[in-house]
Amino acid sequence: MSTQPLNQLGVVRRNIVRADRPAVDQLAKVGVATIHEAMGRVGLMKPYMRPIYAGAQLCGTAVTVLLHPGDNWMMHVVAEQLQPGDVVIAAVSADNADGFFGDLLATSFRARGAVGLVIDGGVRDVRDLTAMNFPVFSKAIHAKGTIKATLGSVNIPVVCAGALVNPGDVVVADDDGVVVVPAAIAQQVADAAAAREANESDKRAKLAAGVLGLDMYNMRPALEKAGLRYID
Amino acid sequence: MSTQPLNQLGVVRRNIVRADRPAVDQLAKVGVATIHEAMGRVGLMKPYMRPIYAGAQLCGTAVTVLLHPGDNWMMHVVAEQLQPGDVVIAAVSADNADGFFGDLLATSFRARGAVGLVIDGGVRDVRDLTAMNFPVFSKAIHAKGTIKATLGSVNIPVVCAGALVNPGDVVVADDDGVVVVPAAIAQQVADAAAAREANESDKRAKLAAGVLGLDMYNMRPALEKAGLRYID
Amino acid sequence: MSTQPLNQLGVVRRNIVRADRPAVDQLAKVGVATIHEAMGRVGLMKPYMRPIYAGAQLCGTAVTVLLHPGDNWMMHVVAEQLQPGDVVIAAVSADNADGFFGDLLATSFRARGAVGLVIDGGVRDVRDLTAMNFPVFSKAIHAKGTIKATLGSVNIPVVCAGALVNPGDVVVADDDGVVVVPAAIAQQVADAAAAREANESDKRAKLAAGVLGLDMYNMRPALEKAGLRYID
Amino acid sequence: MSTQPLNQLGVVRRNIVRADRPAVDQLAKVGVATIHEAMGRVGLMKPYMRPIYAGAQLCGTAVTVLLHPGDNWMMHVVAEQLQPGDVVIAAVSADNADGFFGDLLATSFRARGAVGLVIDGGVRDVRDLTAMNFPVFSKAIHAKGTIKATLGSVNIPVVCAGALVNPGDVVVADDDGVVVVPAAIAQQVADAAAAREANESDKRAKLAAGVLGLDMYNMRPALEKAGLRYID
Amino acid sequence: MSTQPLNQLGVVRRNIVRADRPAVDQLAKVGVATIHEAMGRVGLMKPYMRPIYAGAQLCGTAVTVLLHPGDNWMMHVVAEQLQPGDVVIAAVSADNADGFFGDLLATSFRARGAVGLVIDGGVRDVRDLTAMNFPVFSKAIHAKGTIKATLGSVNIPVVCAGALVNPGDVVVADDDGVVVVPAAIAQQVADAAAAREANESDKRAKLAAGVLGLDMYNMRPALEKAGLRYID
Amino acid sequence: MSTQPLNQLGVVRRNIVRADRPAVDQLAKVGVATIHEAMGRVGLMKPYMRPIYAGAQLCGTAVTVLLHPGDNWMMHVVAEQLQPGDVVIAAVSADNADGFFGDLLATSFRARGAVGLVIDGGVRDVRDLTAMNFPVFSKAIHAKGTIKATLGSVNIPVVCAGALVNPGDVVVADDDGVVVVPAAIAQQVADAAAAREANESDKRAKLAAGVLGLDMYNMRPALEKAGLRYID
Repeated sequence: MSTQPLNQLGVVRRNIVRADRPAVDQLAKVGVATIHEAMGRVGLMKPYMRPIYAGAQLCGTAVTVLLHPGDNWMMHVVAEQLQPGDVVIAAVSADNADGFFGDLLATSFRARGAVGLVIDGGVRDVRDLTAMNFPVFSKAIHAKGTIKATLGSVNIPVVCAGALVNPGDVVVADDDGVVVVPAAIAQQVADAAAAREANESDKRAKLAAGVLGLDMYNMRPALEKAGLRYID
Repeated sequence: MSTQPLNQLGVVRRNIVRADRPAVDQLAKVGVATIHEAMGRVGLMKPYMRPIYAGAQLCGTAVTVLLHPGDNWMMHVVAEQLQPGDVVIAAVSADNADGFFGDLLATSFRARGAVGLVIDGGVRDVRDLTAMNFPVFSKAIHAKGTIKATLGSVNIPVVCAGALVNPGDVVVADDDGVVVVPAAIAQQVADAAAAREANESDKRAKLAAGVLGLDMYNMRPALEKAGLRYID
Repeated sequence: MSTQPLNQLGVVRRNIVRADRPAVDQLAKVGVATIHEAMGRVGLMKPYMRPIYAGAQLCGTAVTVLLHPGDNWMMHVVAEQLQPGDVVIAAVSADNADGFFGDLLATSFRARGAVGLVIDGGVRDVRDLTAMNFPVFSKAIHAKGTIKATLGSVNIPVVCAGALVNPGDVVVADDDGVVVVPAAIAQQVADAAAAREANESDKRAKLAAGVLGLDMYNMRPALEKAGLRYID
Repeated sequence: MSTQPLNQLGVVRRNIVRADRPAVDQLAKVGVATIHEAMGRVGLMKPYMRPIYAGAQLCGTAVTVLLHPGDNWMMHVVAEQLQPGDVVIAAVSADNADGFFGDLLATSFRARGAVGLVIDGGVRDVRDLTAMNFPVFSKAIHAKGTIKATLGSVNIPVVCAGALVNPGDVVVADDDGVVVVPAAIAQQVADAAAAREANESDKRAKLAAGVLGLDMYNMRPALEKAGLRYID
Repeated sequence: MSTQPLNQLGVVRRNIVRADRPAVDQLAKVGVATIHEAMGRVGLMKPYMRPIYAGAQLCGTAVTVLLHPGDNWMMHVVAEQLQPGDVVIAAVSADNADGFFGDLLATSFRARGAVGLVIDGGVRDVRDLTAMNFPVFSKAIHAKGTIKATLGSVNIPVVCAGALVNPGDVVVADDDGVVVVPAAIAQQVADAAAAREANESDKRAKLAAGVLGLDMYNMRPALEKAGLRYID
Repeated sequence: MSTQPLNQLGVVRRNIVRADRPAVDQLAKVGVATIHEAMGRVGLMKPYMRPIYAGAQLCGTAVTVLLHPGDNWMMHVVAEQLQPGDVVIAAVSADNADGFFGDLLATSFRARGAVGLVIDGGVRDVRDLTAMNFPVFSKAIHAKGTIKATLGSVNIPVVCAGALVNPGDVVVADDDGVVVVPAAIAQQVADAAAAREANESDKRAKLAAGVLGLDMYNMRPALEKAGLRYID
């Protein structure tokens, strides 16, 4: 039986279409919360994805890899496909918190130009990774090592921490979480996000001066219509 | 700002390509575990997805819906898009265990020909649903009701319990979990799965007779080569 | 230092005002989901509270007890305060899944007229409890035994599985979860819940006949106004 | 059907009785662990409530708000009810980790005199909140935004992270967690807590000098009586 | 570097000392809760270990196996070491819910005389296992298949679901959980457990007649001494 | 009934054999990840064990204690058994996140020479412990206090966070987790770990220079044999 037509396992796609660099650069300046709002409140990974050190952030084009529990063989395969500005997005075929990644792989990824890692699994060598200032967003920190025995794939669409990621998509991560922007709409999202940020400083100034959101957003009529009652 | 190109929210796709019926019927006869093996060990939803009553099972073509936490408005929208043999796949834009579905919606879905529901959220009226023999696989059972205030979408690609589901895909669920078969390879997977099942009865007979898997699968040389040591 | 004015620990309140029996009896005929809707979608315990056997249900007046982790001493104290029709609501001062309750205590509770137990902890002797048909809703099943060393309290307000329960409140539990109805509004809630159920059979018949919720609830105008788009 | 007598949803109570300021100020100087001990080991929120930045702490009078999953409309309503020294206590009617709160609301709350936020849900803009030094204790950090569609209530009793909070109660939070002190006993608790702290330095000095707790607390006779055996 | 002295991986111990059969048979008649009480409230596995079908129970001598995440190779190795009356205790070197076991392995285990399986991981083919009446206690049910690539060990001491199990120990499982009885004290525990059960029927009769535990156990003096106050 | 032969509860073993100091000192210089690799990828505690402050690390000989939920009495008993260079390993007989340990006990432990604490439960006074630079690895941080009523044991084998720890074993903890090295193989593990570290700097230099792991580890033939396909 040929397993080839039935699945994409054991495949490495070499040529992927990355989002345009100007859009990526523009998105790098905006926060994750603003970006997902600009997309209509979608595209976020689960909130269990956390930076391994305070202040970590990244923005890059996705090179994806599908791993299997307890096996990081494909991490070496994905390294070869990296270009400057890429971020590795690692999914696992089942829940597993093993330490798939450490300082040696980080050294290799960085040498190829990668700007960071997002992994729905565990990582280790956290002290070294922090010293290297190599941003990683992961589900867990765990010293547990892995083997190299099973094929996964590189640059196929993956589901990582609840979000669909296609190779070439823009992935942005900061203190608030991780968001995926499809390559085809990266520029539009970047523009919409920038527009959202533009009028935030005005709002902030008003609120700081004591103006209530109730008045600034003119919420009182809708609240009253919905039946809000004030009692003493 | 037009939000249209940025997201697919607020969209109902009416025409979808469903997997071929013969393939669906064939997959209905095979277990979830065998199907995912035939696909190369991918396509499964997370194991927290459980049937609401013992013995529930389903196999149908996916009609997808994206909901928001605490809001089941789109469940009424999706009902209109159902055709006989469909299964509703409901994703939620954030983790939420509210009871998005109960016996009234089940009555409506069934009247439209739906064979069941898979939802990455909560359901209620479990006693009635069981009496109706309406199969549901869900993350939770919760009496908590929902509102009808926010647009989601129908028949867009969704991530449900960690698995990507495209409208028209085949979704099979039984005691062992839920698996998604892309429509394009449904027939191939059905054939491969059938082939796998075919030689299982022979194996079972041998094992029942006391033959060891070690011998039946000829594992001893590989184990020895890997360094397995027997001690007394 | 007198700890008395600072806390209610070590207190057994003997006289509590129970909800009126007719209201309790009326609520016993309605489902948990309907009751919490009638109260405005509040009053539910967390969905991790599950029946220890399929089909368990109960409705009674709350006699509350606050336990400490690993200690079930107060379960014997609460037994004395039970009257026919009561249900014991057991809270624990910290998360703990020990088996605070088994068939001997169930025998004692039943002898006093109790109709069941709701506990934010673990229970054991599940086979015996099932054979006794003694309904229990709990966070866990665990053989782990407890000691009898620390005072808690009986018939103080407690937070059980996220819900505030005052002594005398009505507690209703079925397959969909557990809901708490304050004694003071028990009759009103019972009436409102009955009214909700009354018009459900009509709705069910229409939906079974193929009428869509979109039309039955006249949702199309609001959906269109919200911007829902149909595409082919 | 009037839902008014059945629930407190859609209500804003304007006049609440806040705990006396001297008691609040005194409690601000004591740790959370000591306060809950002084109350008899009750009043704590669940340990999943964590500060969003290291070193955050707060002490204030509770202004409560009940939210619904995915909806932060009432956060704007509660802002108007804030007085200097208040802390906002936000409960949600079902488990939900959406980002209900960010830097704009923090700016507004601070402008009204609030000293922080305790929320049984998610928050975002963590970098900005940290830069503002605005203390928040939450269940999660999540970029996920919310809508403004459903009424909750302000200044009703709420259950937040397992603890009952009445408007006007004192809420104290530090590295060890969050504790709620009922307004009526705030001064007594403050005095008892201060007394506990007073004799801690003496104990600390003895232990640092090598005196064992076994001797300092005279535990040996009780341990022996309980059956403790020393073996070599 | 010889890894041999550093670890026990890759080892199959053929000769183990099983607990005496009479003690095993005696323990098979007692419940898990009673057994762990007889041992001083220790020896239990975590409460997340649940039977895959209602009413499953087992009692046997432990043959242990250490697996790695996503790999069930050693399940075939352990089969050869089974003797009638054994139960397989499977630990995993990291948290993993993959389906390590299904109906084919169950057929093989049963052919060798095994009475069941306890596994700190996932299993599949639940419908078949139930039809076979083959008792399994597991952490999860998951269709996810495994590979056969990495050596673990057979009949070494393992930690399974939080409990230490040595080869030859007695493992008893029922609705209330799983308990491990060291082989060396199996007879003593069996006797102590039987003694505990003997006087339960008398207690049950008294409680059923309305005698309170407060009186039957003479708890009132201790409660009063601890400061329990009754108020009206 | 004598409970003595049935369990080890209520026992304090005074004389234990600690791992050789030179081996301990050598292990203190190696990371947790490297040590568990040197042992064959075993010996790790669960990844939920985390340092209470960034950068905490410890290496010492284990003095073990078994606690019961909500009870820290034995923490005072264990203090007396400490010698310079020891680390306290605290297990709990059931899941419990209470704060078993704070700054007073830390003062006492340090006065006896202990280098830190590893506890499968909660701790409090985190601010003080951080100021003391007293390393603690725990499951939780929780202000919740405990009682002193039940006997556990000191210096018996315990299962702590999924790992077996015998008194005298070496326990090493850093940012990546906690690992247990049996005393009997401490020197061998230390040597093997040192050897592993020795050739890491060479690898790091090569990877930093752009050499791929694929080539450095000569993985291409095995990947090709396993069926890896490159597509464009």
